[in-house]
Amino acid sequence: MVIKNQVLETIFSRRSIRRYTNESVDKETLDALLQAGMSAPSAMNCKPWEFIVVTDPNLLAQFRRRLLFGDRNAPAAIVVCGNPLLSTNPAAHLFWVQDCSAAAQNILVAATGLGLGSVWVGIHPVKEFIRIVREVLQLPRHVKPLALLYIGHPAEQKPARTQYNAMRIHWQSYPTSARKKPRTR
Amino acid sequence: MVIKNQVLETIFSRRSIRRYTNESVDKETLDALLQAGMSAPSAMNCKPWEFIVVTDPNLLAQFRRRLLFGDRNAPAAIVVCGNPLLSTNPAAHLFWVQDCSAAAQNILVAATGLGLGSVWVGIHPVKEFIRIVREVLQLPRHVKPLALLYIGHPAEQKPARTQYNAMRIHWQSYPTSARKKPRTR
Repeated sequence: MVIKNQVLETIFSRRSIRRYTNESVDKETLDALLQAGMSAPSAMNCKPWEFIVVTDPNLLAQFRRRLLFGDRNAPAAIVVCGNPLLSTNPAAHLFWVQDCSAAAQNILVAATGLGLGSVWVGIHPVKEFIRIVREVLQLPRHVKPLALLYIGHPAEQKPARTQYNAMRIHWQSYPTSARKKPRTR
Repeated sequence: MVIKNQVLETIFSRRSIRRYTNESVDKETLDALLQAGMSAPSAMNCKPWEFIVVTDPNLLAQFRRRLLFGDRNAPAAIVVCGNPLLSTNPAAHLFWVQDCSAAAQNILVAATGLGLGSVWVGIHPVKEFIRIVREVLQLPRHVKPLALLYIGHPAEQKPARTQYNAMRIHWQSYPTSARKKPRTR
């Protein structure tokens, strides 16, 4: 039996969309996505995140021109940044990448649920990508750009899917047979 | 205007649940959660993840007893692990924490959508937590436990919420006024 559920369907429908229409995304919708981002769990509830919303065509053009994998024509981007100094708890320093990634994934799933397309462009820990995003957004040194999420109305359709692979699942403990370093699987 | 949407509501309803009933979670449901996990995006589609599903009461008891923050009475756990060697692409080494975190967040949102409770217990990068999980699950050195997700039927109710904070949002670029290192905010 396959379980049918709207939330599962939305999660399966989230695909990396790389072509967008020129329709803009309104501020209310972007705000809803930020609400979703800030609903993510974080270690010790530190919430070590900040979000830069970019809709300025000149700034978006800089990302498109300068960032490897950044050449997407979306009308909006949410740059998810880590800022562990927002909390005095050391957990923020240890877990900010995970916390901000959970927030990013919430944003992508929420965008899908609202009929929008999105794509996650990884920034951290690639020094050159970090440098470019820092320059474009004028980020101070202690604010760490983790990911640039393009958001827009999709101009390409991709079917829902899971990349479910039973070989990646183990029950109760790691099997002896899989214990060697793989080449690839 | 506030945007109403079932997926958004589910994202807001995902709360960290720390008390569970003794009802088990069936295999089909756990499988649906794993489908959701493996629907996450990953850098260059490397999918550098493996999942250990734990329902054995003896193993769960070890987590409860030995792991700081692990003392939850859930009937199931999904341990999300990174294994960058599953791909030959260097992106898997750079981005596995983010990729696995996105998969973890998908699992939590899917669990909420299916009426289950869940909580994310951070493991990586805390050496002592990693050592314990490695021992309990007999993980080889190249398989990195990122997070232990407890899954079960909730025995506590928490209201849906976002922790939306307008101070964490900046439009177009980082404001000069916020550029100093904060103490806390």
